[in-house]
Amino acid sequence: MGQFGYFGWSGIIKFNVPALSRISLDASSELPIYKQLADSIRVSIEQGALRPGERLPATRELAGELGLNRATVSAAYALLEQSGLLQGHVGRGSFVAQRGSETSGFAFDWDGVLPEIEQSSVTPEHIAISFATSRPAKEEFPLPEFRRLSKEVIDSEGAADILQLGSAYGYEPLRRYLLARATEEQTARASDDLMITNGCQQGLDLLARLLAPSGHKVLMEDPVYHGLPRVFQRAGATICPVSIDANGMDVDAVAGLLQRHRPCVLVVTPNFQNPTGATLSLERRRRIVDLAQRFGVILVENDVYGELRYLGRDLPSLKQLDESGNTILLRSYSKVSFPGLRVGWVLAPRPVIMRLVEAKQICDLHSDQLSQAVLLRFAESGELTRHLERTRAAGRERVQALADACAAHLPVGTTFLRPEGGMNLWLELPAPLTAHALLARAEELGVSFLPGSFFSAGRPHPRGLRISFGGLPPGRITRGIQLLGEAARAVLGTHSAQWNHEPAAALV
Amino acid sequence: MGQFGYFGWSGIIKFNVPALSRISLDASSELPIYKQLADSIRVSIEQGALRPGERLPATRELAGELGLNRATVSAAYALLEQSGLLQGHVGRGSFVAQRGSETSGFAFDWDGVLPEIEQSSVTPEHIAISFATSRPAKEEFPLPEFRRLSKEVIDSEGAADILQLGSAYGYEPLRRYLLARATEEQTARASDDLMITNGCQQGLDLLARLLAPSGHKVLMEDPVYHGLPRVFQRAGATICPVSIDANGMDVDAVAGLLQRHRPCVLVVTPNFQNPTGATLSLERRRRIVDLAQRFGVILVENDVYGELRYLGRDLPSLKQLDESGNTILLRSYSKVSFPGLRVGWVLAPRPVIMRLVEAKQICDLHSDQLSQAVLLRFAESGELTRHLERTRAAGRERVQALADACAAHLPVGTTFLRPEGGMNLWLELPAPLTAHALLARAEELGVSFLPGSFFSAGRPHPRGLRISFGGLPPGRITRGIQLLGEAARAVLGTHSAQWNHEPAAALV
Repeated sequence: MGQFGYFGWSGIIKFNVPALSRISLDASSELPIYKQLADSIRVSIEQGALRPGERLPATRELAGELGLNRATVSAAYALLEQSGLLQGHVGRGSFVAQRGSETSGFAFDWDGVLPEIEQSSVTPEHIAISFATSRPAKEEFPLPEFRRLSKEVIDSEGAADILQLGSAYGYEPLRRYLLARATEEQTARASDDLMITNGCQQGLDLLARLLAPSGHKVLMEDPVYHGLPRVFQRAGATICPVSIDANGMDVDAVAGLLQRHRPCVLVVTPNFQNPTGATLSLERRRRIVDLAQRFGVILVENDVYGELRYLGRDLPSLKQLDESGNTILLRSYSKVSFPGLRVGWVLAPRPVIMRLVEAKQICDLHSDQLSQAVLLRFAESGELTRHLERTRAAGRERVQALADACAAHLPVGTTFLRPEGGMNLWLELPAPLTAHALLARAEELGVSFLPGSFFSAGRPHPRGLRISFGGLPPGRITRGIQLLGEAARAVLGTHSAQWNHEPAAALV
Repeated sequence: MGQFGYFGWSGIIKFNVPALSRISLDASSELPIYKQLADSIRVSIEQGALRPGERLPATRELAGELGLNRATVSAAYALLEQSGLLQGHVGRGSFVAQRGSETSGFAFDWDGVLPEIEQSSVTPEHIAISFATSRPAKEEFPLPEFRRLSKEVIDSEGAADILQLGSAYGYEPLRRYLLARATEEQTARASDDLMITNGCQQGLDLLARLLAPSGHKVLMEDPVYHGLPRVFQRAGATICPVSIDANGMDVDAVAGLLQRHRPCVLVVTPNFQNPTGATLSLERRRRIVDLAQRFGVILVENDVYGELRYLGRDLPSLKQLDESGNTILLRSYSKVSFPGLRVGWVLAPRPVIMRLVEAKQICDLHSDQLSQAVLLRFAESGELTRHLERTRAAGRERVQALADACAAHLPVGTTFLRPEGGMNLWLELPAPLTAHALLARAEELGVSFLPGSFFSAGRPHPRGLRISFGGLPPGRITRGIQLLGEAARAVLGTHSAQWNHEPAAALV
């Protein structure tokens, strides 16, 4: 196992930095070593063994003491810095922050006021291949085109207008362009209007607050992009999960749930759903539109990935199929061009857009106009289309490499869905493998992903996991899945004494 | 009155477009003519006299028929378009939208689902001098510097990172820069952290949702920037208004309200408050910080204008005076540089920032990074400081011109507060003048402003009004106030028969 010299350890490791004597690392735990290390240090701080202002051992030093990779120690320190327990000073090292716990040390009682925080995680620095983030490859950004077109915008006569206070509807030239395109492709009708948002996420937030306040119920796929249930839960709504298979949301289940729960909103991601990669079939699209109309429920069509189809043919959107005017379509430039530029939009019947504009005004006045102007130029010039064509070609190769690698390297009994587009593939591991156990091992091999529990809208998905492949070249994808196979075999090996399972070559 | 040929009209005007026969314009009304016209057309549409798809008279034609300025008719049409009753087609004219009322015409019952909308107003096109918007002059944007520095950012090696998915904390180099500056000026302490927002408004929205949910009470100045009470009301909180005078928020009133209402949050705009322009005195700052600490209430310091001081000396911020760690400071680049680039920030104790980051992630993932990078370059290069110096010099001239004009042209009994900075001046009209009556006349003379009722946090302010002078050159300010004086005399003339008041030259 070479550099991962702590494999096989268990129990308490003692060493000669007295304050850190409580450090306990257990290699058979499902928790990655860096998180265990961070927990031990946290306990030392909370119990007063490490005092505010005290300097911690350098990462190199502690790594040597513990026989760990230095990156593992750095990851532990980073996690503690993020939660405010440590403070890093470049060139001087890491120090215990000037308070014992997160909210103490203030005369003001923040503990009594603030809600609990979700424990956020830090990706350890030593992760060489991350399948954890659904985003495009920055190496494939069309930088020369971006630079040329941005400069055109910056030099244009309209620059001062871009820099002046704008409208909550969005930058008018972009709004007109998007509305004209949507009308052309028969997605928008005369009674529709369009508002620009800071990516789709803001569209969801504004819609959640407008349409699904406390006491309301919302139907959505499960597993689902975690930002979806959270945004509706924050607004006060209750989530009713609907299962999803290779053809998208389970329509028969929808019919039953509509009858039973009378939700106000049904959220559907029809194309290359995050995290399953599933595409809703045409027949199901028709049935969902029909059900939504019949039950008087608002249909929110979340379509961030729609333009990233690698295989097969485009299907009509729910908005195009809708005849009763109850569908709200969310789209975005962020996933298909530059995620750092936050530009999405909502296309909906005008009464909805009027309320959204009012809400947006209160929320943040309007979206940033420089990015809107740059992306408009990008779209109008044809460069967006050319970039999309290249992205689709690259995506086809990625999906091919990923599917081949999954079939070749993952244990028998693993199943996965080959996506027709987007950036995500969903794996189901065979028992007794769990996504969390696999992740702990995989991170030690330098590979990460997000376990299924992260995408829960109500159900646990202990054996499910998401492989995000949008940001990696095919060779890294293959290597990553190969390492995942190794990690799976290692975990199965640990379990085999108990469960008598053998690691094996995969078939899907 | 020349082109304003309808002065003195009243009663119903009939003319030969049969569908529009119900048009009724009353020059003695406080409602501007364009709004009266829009209302008449709305009634025609709602009662079916004008049918969906029907073409309206051209603005020129209708203006001729009614003896109105063409711009007045355009403003009425624009208002109706905005509310979805009309649809404009460039070159073809205006048509009644394909539904009778705002939400009918859909098979789906939007009326049953959506909340009431606030009637938004359109600034009529013929307004030559608008005191209505608190924003800088676009003619004074430092465009050459913006162009040069933006291109440096775009050409930089870090461009791809700017375009990639970022952090909810904000663009890390900007966050570090702002935190270092705040530490340097002793605003930030070691236990503080900083998050970038889409302007201050988003900071307020996130804080309102975090700190003041349903059932909580929030203290704030009254009158106040309308986005403040609205954002807290949307979160579910109840607003307790505190009066404000030339030295800022009434601290004696605060003490009583804290005792009586036990609010969770006290929002203060210490510098050049919007709309009053008032600056909180040092003594009151100390007392407010002390009171907030004593009552365990969170202090939200809303400081969008702080860097725009034209007269006098900078005072310490509440955050600087606070020793108990209960103060949250909001600042922004938007007002002091380019409002179209939405970059503000929240400086607060780390436990608060951690929750805000979690909320921001759900809200819109993160703020646009191109603008953050451009504004960082702008600040680091020293160009922001140079721009601020020029803006302050221009601001001094504006305030001088405005104060002189108010003293010279407004009726006896008008009072106003000469602001030490910012973009707003507050006027109180003498009885029987009301801001709404004055506005109706002023708009006919091509001048607009926002009446005091717009800034209510609970009290009506019928005689108050806000003059936003940040976007106008001194000559226009003088001319605008002169016209306002004319409008005031006209309204007083109407009333004089009843109240026996004479228009007169002003003293303040």
